[in-house]
Amino acid sequence: MNLAESLALVYKGKLLTAFDDMAPFLIDWRKRYKGKAIAVALPASAPEVSALVKWCATHKVPVVAQGGNTGLSGGSVPDSSGRAIVISLTKMNKVRAIDTVNNTITVEAGCILQNLQDAALAVNRLFGVSLAAKGSCTVGGNLSTNAGGVQVIRYGNMREQCLGLEVVTAEGEIWDGLRGLRKDNTGYDLRDLYVGAEGTLGVITAAVLKLQPLPVGQVVAMCVVDSPKAALDLLALAQSQLGGNLSAFELMSNICLDLVKKHNPNAKIPFPDAAWTVLIEVSDLHSEQSAVALINRLLESAFEAGCIADATISQSLTQFKDLWSLREDISEAQASEGKNIKHDVAVPISTIATFIEQTNAAIELAHPGIRMVVFGHLGDGNLHYNVSPPSDRTGPQDEDWFMGQQAAINLITHNAVAAFNGSVSAEHGLGVLRRDEASRYKSPIEMALMRKIKHALDPDNLMNPGKVLSL
Amino acid sequence: MNLAESLALVYKGKLLTAFDDMAPFLIDWRKRYKGKAIAVALPASAPEVSALVKWCATHKVPVVAQGGNTGLSGGSVPDSSGRAIVISLTKMNKVRAIDTVNNTITVEAGCILQNLQDAALAVNRLFGVSLAAKGSCTVGGNLSTNAGGVQVIRYGNMREQCLGLEVVTAEGEIWDGLRGLRKDNTGYDLRDLYVGAEGTLGVITAAVLKLQPLPVGQVVAMCVVDSPKAALDLLALAQSQLGGNLSAFELMSNICLDLVKKHNPNAKIPFPDAAWTVLIEVSDLHSEQSAVALINRLLESAFEAGCIADATISQSLTQFKDLWSLREDISEAQASEGKNIKHDVAVPISTIATFIEQTNAAIELAHPGIRMVVFGHLGDGNLHYNVSPPSDRTGPQDEDWFMGQQAAINLITHNAVAAFNGSVSAEHGLGVLRRDEASRYKSPIEMALMRKIKHALDPDNLMNPGKVLSL
Repeated sequence: MNLAESLALVYKGKLLTAFDDMAPFLIDWRKRYKGKAIAVALPASAPEVSALVKWCATHKVPVVAQGGNTGLSGGSVPDSSGRAIVISLTKMNKVRAIDTVNNTITVEAGCILQNLQDAALAVNRLFGVSLAAKGSCTVGGNLSTNAGGVQVIRYGNMREQCLGLEVVTAEGEIWDGLRGLRKDNTGYDLRDLYVGAEGTLGVITAAVLKLQPLPVGQVVAMCVVDSPKAALDLLALAQSQLGGNLSAFELMSNICLDLVKKHNPNAKIPFPDAAWTVLIEVSDLHSEQSAVALINRLLESAFEAGCIADATISQSLTQFKDLWSLREDISEAQASEGKNIKHDVAVPISTIATFIEQTNAAIELAHPGIRMVVFGHLGDGNLHYNVSPPSDRTGPQDEDWFMGQQAAINLITHNAVAAFNGSVSAEHGLGVLRRDEASRYKSPIEMALMRKIKHALDPDNLMNPGKVLSL
Repeated sequence: MNLAESLALVYKGKLLTAFDDMAPFLIDWRKRYKGKAIAVALPASAPEVSALVKWCATHKVPVVAQGGNTGLSGGSVPDSSGRAIVISLTKMNKVRAIDTVNNTITVEAGCILQNLQDAALAVNRLFGVSLAAKGSCTVGGNLSTNAGGVQVIRYGNMREQCLGLEVVTAEGEIWDGLRGLRKDNTGYDLRDLYVGAEGTLGVITAAVLKLQPLPVGQVVAMCVVDSPKAALDLLALAQSQLGGNLSAFELMSNICLDLVKKHNPNAKIPFPDAAWTVLIEVSDLHSEQSAVALINRLLESAFEAGCIADATISQSLTQFKDLWSLREDISEAQASEGKNIKHDVAVPISTIATFIEQTNAAIELAHPGIRMVVFGHLGDGNLHYNVSPPSDRTGPQDEDWFMGQQAAINLITHNAVAAFNGSVSAEHGLGVLRRDEASRYKSPIEMALMRKIKHALDPDNLMNPGKVLSL
């Protein structure tokens, strides 16, 4: 009896072992990492996950928990050893409970983010995290990578949404920490340890998450600014005036919008010649009118203070969506331009203008003609600091050459991030993509603390081994 | 050479060893716990703390970190063995940096909360946590107990204020995690593990904390409600209308205000006959006028919806302070009434009315004449669910009798809390006071996980031993 047959005996649920059936679970979304597995299991409940993990613990078989498999750092696919089993949580996709007085929703890990958002909407509430992959990413993956997105400035990361967890530990025990409490100081913060651990300490099977009051009025303004420094002045103004009404603050360089226009000629770019633009979203609980009044007041003072050169405000839902789509389409436009080099970095907000200026200059000096595709969540100090090849070297024959520059470009970027006391992974997690880079920039003391935690909760190194940190 | 002399050799700072000098550091604020120590050290820097803890690790001497020593659960004083040294962080009280663009402040652990608040105010910012002991409690203690207070509904607990930490580990190493980033997904959440750990995993020596935009206009309304259920309806209305402008939502039973009046005849109680009152604070970034408009609109709809019977709004700063002082003076008034039994509990907000009704009834049935002094942060599901003796048994001769009821009353209360999936310590931590009760209500799996963490980070059990969990 081989391992897969032994597993099938304890696990009565759906188990994929055929090469073709397993294939979609063994390659990551960006098609950078391709692995192998004994089997892919699709459990339908926490006890089923528990049985699986207990079996794995007994047989010393690695466990790779997987949600929507949309991660950008390769954290959700097994390595090429073929020793692991993949536990896909996608069948555990139920909304278990909604409490509109406590403003909480209890969902299983495999629940697709969009479905969670829709369930909140159905009871007149907002779920505070949204991101491009919302149609296929899952809550378990969002929690395990502590996902961010455009609303972090208002509601925080995934960690801030989470009040309680259900987790299958490395021993296969079920920890029921599904408490829907705003305050609970009764011991160590196990919840936040599993959040962001990318499945390396245990498998998240369900969560209690916060719901927010649903904004009634929303408006977005696109503003022309001279520089990231001017964008920071605008941010300070927006924060001091808008407080909890400021729901997004995004920065884009002109090259981002040029790419969007190039790959979607129908895109309407209000200020095609602007060096930098900022997208500001204002949300109001009362009315669209109030939201418009707030943004008008902000833009007035911004003009007065000289931090914006021009601006346009969405006048309809269509315009609202059109302006947002300019921001949302950047990644796809950049992908249409061929392979590119992505960075997901954060620095203290006060240093972001200097960071961009110095790092752009350093990369452009070392790699003439290279295009810096800089955009992101300025209000969180988080940039998607991406790099595309020179515009005359975008053919398929240039890809190998360009990707050959990746290590050097990563090094310049991440050395700069470290110099600013920043983060080499702001919202995408480490997976395998950023694992070694992160450990290079962290102190030996911090790495030792992380290894102690890992060893304490997963002594046999069976939970998503090789991700987050190497042992 | 005894241990104190050996310690004095490595530690050149201030070291107290005389009985009288040490005395104030060896008894807790409520005078419930009195301990002994080899010495009390007052280091002035993280390297000094590091040297002390290294010496303790070598000599297997327990370390009790202490801030303002205002904790309510006995977490900050050593046990009676006399083996420990107390490290008072009060000399490490500097504000190291303020960054008004990043909206962060970097402070040492011994900085008094009021001084932190004042430093924020001086740059036109708000620090989001405030509590009664602010004049003497310290940031390190606030972080180690994950302190709460009246603004949690708007800004969250101490944990939510914290972006980065500097910690001296159990080995005496300095972990520099002083990052001021809004997003950083590069490994395990060590920060949130030290926050709320009450010094049992390491000693917090400094922190990077968030600053908030400073509200310009503030107004408070006192509302009469028929019941906690009606208060919940009012809360729902307030949340849906006010969002980020709702900065406090406090519930008080009539007996609370009766006690305030009794012990301060000058107190102005707007509605002396109301069974329950709610204090709602609205904060606005623009003007007092806007804040008043918001509260007026809320009260109008609350009257219409029938969830309030009467209300008054502060018309001046004096009235604002007077109304707040009614809430703030409850604890002192109750203390003036003699010894009392305190609980700091949280339940899901949706169950709080039922919790109060059922638990009050159960306690009153078992202990006739007992007075339930129920008040707290309704918007967080957090009640200071306190108990005073019958009004005819408040003399000093009754104290022993009354405190003899404590275990039985605790049991009824905390069993009820557990039945509602609540917390036996919402914002005061476990210390020794709630250590064993918390472990009784937690699952063996959760306790085992906590012990694994403790063992991993403090294998010799030298960091504040006996607090949070018994080994």
